[in-house]
Amino acid sequence: MPALRIDLSYDGTEFHGYAKQPDVRTVQAELESALAKVLGEVDTVVAGRTDAGVHARHQVVSLAWPQPVDLERLQRALLKLLPPDITVNRISAVDDQFSARFSATSRTYRYQVSTAPAPDPFERRTHWQVSEPLDAFAMNQGARHLVGEHDFASFCRRAEGRSTTRTVLAANWTEPQPDVLVFEIRGLAFCHQMVRSIVAALVDVGRGKLDPGDIRRILFAEDRNAARGAAPPHGLFLWEIEY
Amino acid sequence: MPALRIDLSYDGTEFHGYAKQPDVRTVQAELESALAKVLGEVDTVVAGRTDAGVHARHQVVSLAWPQPVDLERLQRALLKLLPPDITVNRISAVDDQFSARFSATSRTYRYQVSTAPAPDPFERRTHWQVSEPLDAFAMNQGARHLVGEHDFASFCRRAEGRSTTRTVLAANWTEPQPDVLVFEIRGLAFCHQMVRSIVAALVDVGRGKLDPGDIRRILFAEDRNAARGAAPPHGLFLWEIEY
Repeated sequence: MPALRIDLSYDGTEFHGYAKQPDVRTVQAELESALAKVLGEVDTVVAGRTDAGVHARHQVVSLAWPQPVDLERLQRALLKLLPPDITVNRISAVDDQFSARFSATSRTYRYQVSTAPAPDPFERRTHWQVSEPLDAFAMNQGARHLVGEHDFASFCRRAEGRSTTRTVLAANWTEPQPDVLVFEIRGLAFCHQMVRSIVAALVDVGRGKLDPGDIRRILFAEDRNAARGAAPPHGLFLWEIEY
Repeated sequence: MPALRIDLSYDGTEFHGYAKQPDVRTVQAELESALAKVLGEVDTVVAGRTDAGVHARHQVVSLAWPQPVDLERLQRALLKLLPPDITVNRISAVDDQFSARFSATSRTYRYQVSTAPAPDPFERRTHWQVSEPLDAFAMNQGARHLVGEHDFASFCRRAEGRSTTRTVLAANWTEPQPDVLVFEIRGLAFCHQMVRSIVAALVDVGRGKLDPGDIRRILFAEDRNAARGAAPPHGLFLWEIEY
């Protein structure tokens, strides 16, 4: 049993993101501190870092752990130690070749928008409440231009010297209930703020401020200045990691 | 246009209940302070007071207001003034005979329980997370005994000299999704802590600590000491007011 895989979920509202940072509350610090109490100090690898305020319905963490361990007991111990905004859904024994990050074949993000004129108080932590009607058909026409391998520089917060070429497998909006629009995007990997930047542009399409074809224009500009801002973090969920 | 009816909803998490009290945050105080900025000082009547931490998907408030008023504009003004945990879904002009409280013919409450072994962080403000399997069939057998006109003294937090006789029209548990049980109870009116006391007893039935027939025994004892405690407030929603 050379490695462990932990499947978890968290409400990002009260975290300064996944990754450890000094002096702020992070998911990684909470998780590693709970693990340290049961297993001792460990180093973890995460499938997809999330920014401050972003949620995870499904996040995966792996760690080297050469000794045998009772997985159910470890899960129960972590559930007791973790704060109520993080949960461990499953722990599995995996091959030591497994990396939560590098073994992932694709990632799905979901972004929730509410268009209700009177904002629902129960959606305020999980939906971007735009409170105006949006043209979902036009938003889907815009989203189609994103599918494929492209340089997403226009939608990436640039990290010096890193490539911004990514492959998007699927991207579309649905209306699961009245006044709620949900964007689901699946790709091999995503650059920093990519989903939120795309959502901001597509919501501008939905408002009629941009045409669907403008998404293609912005994408092909390969320039962050061609797009405007990013949708707020609290509507975004890391939704599924595929292996 | 002699009176106004306001249909609202609120997330009760950060309120010390509906009713105004000195020095604490209440829904009534927030609502009346927003109304005061638009209409001036008004007195309001509420359909059903809720305790600290209890939510309302549908709550109704009425107030005398003899002058003409633009209802949509008033709604927009209130939406801007109210905090994000309260929303106004509709404002209507009603006859001055209308009282949010006395005109209501029945009230429906809903109580949400999660039985998932790993508690979902997104349900922690809206579900009682019991995190163990419950026997929903037995809980429904127990709930059947509550329907009808009874003295609910065993399930009421006593107010000196007040009757505890109430009529329950329907009470049952459903499982809308795996690991979630939902109790819906409709009655003409409810006494203080009645729904949460009933839920506590029925969850004890679901755990096998009580038999379904014990609900009948507790009810007929007409004694608060025959039942035990109350389920936590955050699983409870005032769900619908019928007129």
